[in-house]
Amino acid sequence: MEKRYDVAIIGTGPAGLEAAINCKIRNKSVIIFGTNNLSTKLAKAPRIDNYLGLHGISGNDLKEKFLEHINSMDISITEERINAVYAMGDYYALMVNEKMYEATTLILATGIEYTKPYIGEEELLGRGVGYCATCDAPLYKGKDVIIIAQGESGEDEANYVKEICNKLYYVPLYKGNYNLNEGIEIIKGVPKEIREQGDKREVILSNETLSADGVFILRDTISPKQLVAGLETEDGHIKVNRDMSTNLKGCYAAGDCTGRPYQYIKAAGEGLVAALSAVSYIDNLSRNK
Amino acid sequence: MEKRYDVAIIGTGPAGLEAAINCKIRNKSVIIFGTNNLSTKLAKAPRIDNYLGLHGISGNDLKEKFLEHINSMDISITEERINAVYAMGDYYALMVNEKMYEATTLILATGIEYTKPYIGEEELLGRGVGYCATCDAPLYKGKDVIIIAQGESGEDEANYVKEICNKLYYVPLYKGNYNLNEGIEIIKGVPKEIREQGDKREVILSNETLSADGVFILRDTISPKQLVAGLETEDGHIKVNRDMSTNLKGCYAAGDCTGRPYQYIKAAGEGLVAALSAVSYIDNLSRNK
Ligand SMILES: Cc1cc2nc3c(=O)[nH]c(=O)nc-3n(C[C@H](O)[C@H](O)[C@H](O)COP(=O)(O)OP(=O)(O)OC[C@H]3O[C@@H](n4cnc5c(N)ncnc54)[C@H](O)[C@@H]3O)c2cc1C
Ligand SMILES: Cc1cc2nc3c(=O)[nH]c(=O)nc-3n(C[C@H](O)[C@H](O)[C@H](O)COP(=O)(O)OP(=O)(O)OC[C@H]3O[C@@H](n4cnc5c(N)ncnc54)[C@H](O)[C@@H]3O)c2cc1C
Repeated sequence: MEKRYDVAIIGTGPAGLEAAINCKIRNKSVIIFGTNNLSTKLAKAPRIDNYLGLHGISGNDLKEKFLEHINSMDISITEERINAVYAMGDYYALMVNEKMYEATTLILATGIEYTKPYIGEEELLGRGVGYCATCDAPLYKGKDVIIIAQGESGEDEANYVKEICNKLYYVPLYKGNYNLNEGIEIIKGVPKEIREQGDKREVILSNETLSADGVFILRDTISPKQLVAGLETEDGHIKVNRDMSTNLKGCYAAGDCTGRPYQYIKAAGEGLVAALSAVSYIDNLSRNK
Repeated sequence: MEKRYDVAIIGTGPAGLEAAINCKIRNKSVIIFGTNNLSTKLAKAPRIDNYLGLHGISGNDLKEKFLEHINSMDISITEERINAVYAMGDYYALMVNEKMYEATTLILATGIEYTKPYIGEEELLGRGVGYCATCDAPLYKGKDVIIIAQGESGEDEANYVKEICNKLYYVPLYKGNYNLNEGIEIIKGVPKEIREQGDKREVILSNETLSADGVFILRDTISPKQLVAGLETEDGHIKVNRDMSTNLKGCYAAGDCTGRPYQYIKAAGEGLVAALSAVSYIDNLSRNK
């Protein structure tokens, strides 16, 4: 049987990290999913003036402080993207492609996507446009696929999809040394619109138009509603109570994903509250056994 | 006319400080009341493991970091205790003994009293037992008074009351070099109970019993309900919405005073949210003018 964790945390921004720290202090077994870069939003901030105690720090230095903190508490990050989460009654199942993780409680700290969807994206969702390339790859066996990727993690998905599909265009929205398998065509350009053209889907870029059978848009953050089946949201944010509980029992949320203001210390504060709520939920379960 | 501030903040713990920082960043005029020691709860913490980015820091070192932060942003603390606040319609009046301050919005970040009331305290409140010695001193002209003080700020109040009353017993619940005027009798001991004895009030200490006409209990924090007339509370905490607004328009709250968990980064996160809510309240006012 899979190990069942007390708490699974999705997201390694300030909300997720502060949640992990407090679960650990309270002696709960915890797994935290995200990246060792923590959060692209951290790295991007040139100077932060409103993180109490660390005036004028750069995003990169704040990231280092966060890493020091979790390292000295022996918290390690599981570098995986969760594609879907299912509430199974008394536990949550977190899916990473073919793998599954189990946890009694769930803390969503996935941040929020600041960019707007492309024209046509929402209309075509589920009809040739998707957000999880590895999940839906089997649909495109021997067919042509376009992957638009916001970050490096898109490369793994692209390499995996290429084993199944025919032609694969990879549109990276970031700079780097693309670590891509042979046969994947890298396209530089800024997507403007996605549209239907008979059976095909077209991605209109600033400089050219690509055509394929399926399009995947891989952003850092998928919308919470899509990530967790049955989760209640409001204006695109996860609906939470003051104790950071959601409509799903044992599921908590913290940080940007719960609503404005989008700020580090608000995210961290909520991470703490979510963690302590999850801890007391677990303690109550074992008391009532 | 008195200067009217955009925002008045009561409390210099993490909640109040983070609120002040964000009001300042948003170019609002702000006054913050409390002490340059920030918070006794900061100084008391031997080691803090859950303030993200500053692992294993002592309360004193965290206090220094907070002071550095506000100093480098030119935020200075007004060292006064607010005794009462009144909602005046379009502004708040904050009373400090004989002085008054005005502000369009109010952020309550007063922390919470961890200790329980003494036996008899609540029953006798307003009948010989009070929390604001300087406010009620005129009632005890030429009479005997007992002051129980949790911190140094009690000394100023005691010196002021001594000018008016007859006998003054001062029961300090802290160690220090008591800076008290002549004629004030310092009594060491732990109060257990306050009771009515005819016209007199008695304070029963571990080792002796004091008798006087009035008793004042000066804690770091007075209950929010008592501080702000008409404020809605729930189980002793200020009732707030997700944006930290209270039932009084233009009045926000943050930190321990809004409820558990009692923790630094939760307090700071809420301070930020309260500040940005106050800022947008003010911006809306001027837009609708
Ligand atoms: C340029 C810039 C400057 C900023 N400046 C400031 C500032 O000065 N002060 C301030 O307070 N705030 C600032 N912010 C805002 C701040 O970055 C955010 O409020 C904060 O990062 C939110 O924290 P979070 O933990 O909620 O989410 P994030 O930091 O966004 O972290 C979410 C994490 O979850 C991961 N994740 C998401 N979905 C999954 C999944 N399915 N599986 C695995 N991992 C997943 C993401 O990859 C990411 O690492 C700035 C933001 C930007 C972009
Ligand atoms: C020994 C100890 C150890 C702790 N350890 C930790 C820990 O490891 N991690 C953690 O996260 N938390 C810890 N805490 C809890 C933490 O101290 C509190 O949660 C935090 O200080 C709350 O911040 P606050 O801003 O809400 O209020 P406070 O820090 O209590 O500050 C309130 C301030 O408002 C002032 N004030 C109140 N009324 C008035 C008035 N009428 N006029 C003017 N000023 C007023 C008070 O004097 C005080 O300075 C600890 C607490 C204690 C006592």
